Amino acid sequence: MKEYDVVVIGGSAAGISAAITARRFYPEKSILVIRREKQTVIPCGIPYVFGELSTCSKNLIPDGVLTNNRIDLLVDEVTDIDREGHVVKTTGGEQVRYSKLVLATGSLPIVPPIPGVEKKGVYAIKKSAPYLEEMIAAMDKAKDILIVGGGFIGVEIAEEANKNRDVNVRIVEMLEHCLLLNYDEEFSTLAEETLRSQGIELYVSERAEAFLGGEQVEKVKLSDGKELPADVVVLGIGAKANAELAKKVGLEIGPTGGIQVNRYMQTSDPDIFACGDCAEKVSFYDGTPSRLKLASIATMEARIAGANLFSIRRANEGVIGVYSTILGNTAFCAAGLTEREAVERGYKVITGTAESVNRHPGSMPGAAPLKVKLVFEAGTHILLGGQVSGAKSAGELINAISACISNRMTADDMATFQMGTHPALTASPIAYQLVNAAEVALASER
Amino acid sequence: MKEYDVVVIGGSAAGISAAITARRFYPEKSILVIRREKQTVIPCGIPYVFGELSTCSKNLIPDGVLTNNRIDLLVDEVTDIDREGHVVKTTGGEQVRYSKLVLATGSLPIVPPIPGVEKKGVYAIKKSAPYLEEMIAAMDKAKDILIVGGGFIGVEIAEEANKNRDVNVRIVEMLEHCLLLNYDEEFSTLAEETLRSQGIELYVSERAEAFLGGEQVEKVKLSDGKELPADVVVLGIGAKANAELAKKVGLEIGPTGGIQVNRYMQTSDPDIFACGDCAEKVSFYDGTPSRLKLASIATMEARIAGANLFSIRRANEGVIGVYSTILGNTAFCAAGLTEREAVERGYKVITGTAESVNRHPGSMPGAAPLKVKLVFEAGTHILLGGQVSGAKSAGELINAISACISNRMTADDMATFQMGTHPALTASPIAYQLVNAAEVALASER
Repeated sequence: MKEYDVVVIGGSAAGISAAITARRFYPEKSILVIRREKQTVIPCGIPYVFGELSTCSKNLIPDGVLTNNRIDLLVDEVTDIDREGHVVKTTGGEQVRYSKLVLATGSLPIVPPIPGVEKKGVYAIKKSAPYLEEMIAAMDKAKDILIVGGGFIGVEIAEEANKNRDVNVRIVEMLEHCLLLNYDEEFSTLAEETLRSQGIELYVSERAEAFLGGEQVEKVKLSDGKELPADVVVLGIGAKANAELAKKVGLEIGPTGGIQVNRYMQTSDPDIFACGDCAEKVSFYDGTPSRLKLASIATMEARIAGANLFSIRRANEGVIGVYSTILGNTAFCAAGLTEREAVERGYKVITGTAESVNRHPGSMPGAAPLKVKLVFEAGTHILLGGQVSGAKSAGELINAISACISNRMTADDMATFQMGTHPALTASPIAYQLVNAAEVALASER
Repeated sequence: MKEYDVVVIGGSAAGISAAITARRFYPEKSILVIRREKQTVIPCGIPYVFGELSTCSKNLIPDGVLTNNRIDLLVDEVTDIDREGHVVKTTGGEQVRYSKLVLATGSLPIVPPIPGVEKKGVYAIKKSAPYLEEMIAAMDKAKDILIVGGGFIGVEIAEEANKNRDVNVRIVEMLEHCLLLNYDEEFSTLAEETLRSQGIELYVSERAEAFLGGEQVEKVKLSDGKELPADVVVLGIGAKANAELAKKVGLEIGPTGGIQVNRYMQTSDPDIFACGDCAEKVSFYDGTPSRLKLASIATMEARIAGANLFSIRRANEGVIGVYSTILGNTAFCAAGLTEREAVERGYKVITGTAESVNRHPGSMPGAAPLKVKLVFEAGTHILLGGQVSGAKSAGELINAISACISNRMTADDMATFQMGTHPALTASPIAYQLVNAAEVALASER
C-alpha cells in the first residue's frame, strides 16, 4: 500500500493550493494529489474558452505546479475513505494510506428541473476539458445561443459566445437586472448597457420555463409565455458543493450542503480537512452560512488548510466575497456587501460614490473613467463593501478595498488613506476615487 | 477689508484639497484660496510636459475645482500675517481677515552650491508654467541633456527628455544605483536596464562637481574627473519645505525645516494649520522626523487639516511613503520601508518575492509580468513595506499594500488575504503575487 503524509483529493484551485502550501511549510512531508480529470481546467478561464482563447487547451493548469513542488499526482477517482485506517480507495483499485487528508472536491453546476433540460444542446458548465470542447463545437454551429442566468458566469459566457460568431446571444435573468447579487443597480445597468451595445439581448425578470424541441433543443419558453429560438442553451445559475464522498463516509455536512469545517478548516474528523467549493462557509460579517463560491476563496481556504495540517493554526475569518469581471472594455469589481444587501441584512448605511479618470492630467495616454462606490455602516462608519467600474486597474483597486474591509477600516481611515498616485497609472491625489468616495459618504451624514 | 471663515495660502495639491475638504464638511463657511501663480501646474505631471504632453498647457489644474466648490480665488502673494488680528496681507495690497488659516505653501527645489550652477541652461524644477515652457524650449534645441539626481523626478524627466528628440540624455547619481532611496537593489537595477535600453546613459556613484562653460553651461565635471557635454542640466535632487512666511511670523519650525504641526495639522498657532510639502512630517513607523514630500501625502494632510478647521478631529498617523512610476512599459511602485531601509533602521526582517503574469491563463491578451516583494519584521511578522514592478495594475496593487501596512497586517493575514481575481485583470488565485510573497517570507523563517 502507498503511504503519504498528506493526501489531497481534488486538483483544481483548492487542491493545488493546499498541496503547495503544505509543501511550503512542511518540506519533509510526502504529498499526493489525487484528481479525476486528466487535465485541470482553469476554472475562472472557462468563459474565455468560448471566445478569446477559442480552445480549452489554452486554459489548463500545467502539472508543473505539482512536480516543481515535489507533489505526486494520481489521476484516479476516490470512491471511499477508511477513516479508522486512514486509507483512501480509488476506482482504479489503489489504496493510499494518509496521515492527513484534504478534501478539495469542488462543486457541481446546478441543473434545475426545468422540462426539457435533458435535451441535446442544453449545457451546464462542467470543469471538464472534453465537455467544454463539445460546447465550443456546438456554439460554432449555433445560430441562437441562450444563457440562463445573468450572473458573472452568464454574462461572461454571453460576451465570449458572441465573439467571432454570426449568432444571436440572449440572456434570461430572473431578477430585474443582471449581476444584481453582486452590484447595486447603477453598476448592473451599466453592465447591461455594455452587453446590449454588443448586440446581446437581455430578458430580465424572466424565468426559463421549458426547453422545447425534439431530441435537440430548439426553443426556450419564458415565464411570460414568449418563446425564444435556441440551438445552444447554457445554464449559468450557480453551483453546489460536491460533498458526496464526505457524506458517504459520515462527515458532518453544513446548512448549505457543504462539508462542515471549523475555523481551522478541519472537518468533524480532525485528520480530514476540507477547503474550496466543497466546504461550508460563513460570512465575514455575521458568521451566518454563506453560499459564496469563488476560486479566490478556495485558494484562501486552501492556504489555511494546507498550513494547518500539522503544527500551524491559521484561522478563517469568514468570506468577504471579492469579484472581478470585464465586459467590453469596462471592468466591474465588487467586494463585500452591496448597499442593497447591507440594507437587506438590517444595516443602516451611508454611501459615497466618486468618479474620475484614472490618469492625471486626463490628457495622459490610456485615460479611462474609474468609478468607486463605498458602503459604510452609519454611526460606526465601518466599511461594509465597495464596487468599482471602469479602467482595468479596477482589478487591483478592488483588492485595496478588500484589505480595507478585512481590517474594518472606517470612512475616516479611508479618507486619510495613504495612496500612491502617478500620472500614467492612477487618478490624481486630489481626485483619487477611493478617498473621495469615503469623503462623500461622510459629508452625506452631516 | 475682506473677511473669510477660511483662508488657504497655496493653490497646489495641498491647498486645493484643504479648501475642498473644508467646503465638504462646512457647507456654510466662506473659503478663499490665495495663490501666487496665474495657473497651477499639476506637480506629478511635470516630467511629462517634457515628452508625452509636450506642453505645460496640458498639465494644469483647472480652476473649476475651486469655483465648482464655491471657493473664491485670489491670485496674489501673501507677504505677512497679523496673527493677533487674524489678517493676511498681500503684495497686491489686499488685507483679508480669516477665522482659520491654512498654510499650503509647498516646497522649493534644492539648488546645491555647485560651481557654475548659476549658468544659463541649468534648471531646477520649479512649479511654474512659464519656467517649464522655457525648459521645454531649451530641451528642444539641446544636443546633450544631463540630469543630476536619479530619483523619481530625475529618471522620469530623463525618459521624457529622450522622447521625440535627437539628444543624448545622461543621469548622474551619487548612490550606487538610481532610485535606491525607494527600492531595493533588484528593482533599481531593473529600472536602470529599462533606462539604458532607451539609450539613456547612467553615471552612478558619481557627483556633479562643477558646471563648466561661459555664460551658458557646456560641460559637467564629475567627481571622478570625467567631463560630460551638456547644454541643458536639470537638477532633480529634491525639495525643501517653503516655510519662509511661517518663519517670518514666528511659527515654530520643525527639525527638517518644515512648519511644525501636531497630529491635527495645527501649527504652534492653533488658528493656523499647515499641510503638504511645507509642513513637518513624522514617520508612520517610529514617529521620527521624515523628509518625505509627495503630492499624495500633501492631499492626505490637507484632508486632515481641512476637516479639523472647526469641529472635526482627524489625526495624522505619520507618513508611510507610497510611490509609483513607470519607465518604458514597466511600472515601479513602492510603499513603506525597503529591506535596506528597514535593516538600516535596526529591524530584523524576513522578505518574500513572488512573480507571475497578471493574467490567467497567460495566453489572455495583455499578459505582462508582475513582481511583488514584501518586507516583514521578523518575529512579529508585521508588514513594513512592499515593492512592485511590472504591469500597470501595479499602480493600484501598491495601494492594496499600503492598506495592509497602515493596518499593520501580518504575513499570515496577507497569506490568507481575500483578493478578487479575474483572467483578464489579475494573476490567478493560485499565483496571486501579494499572497505568495507573504507565504514565501513565512516559509523562509521555518
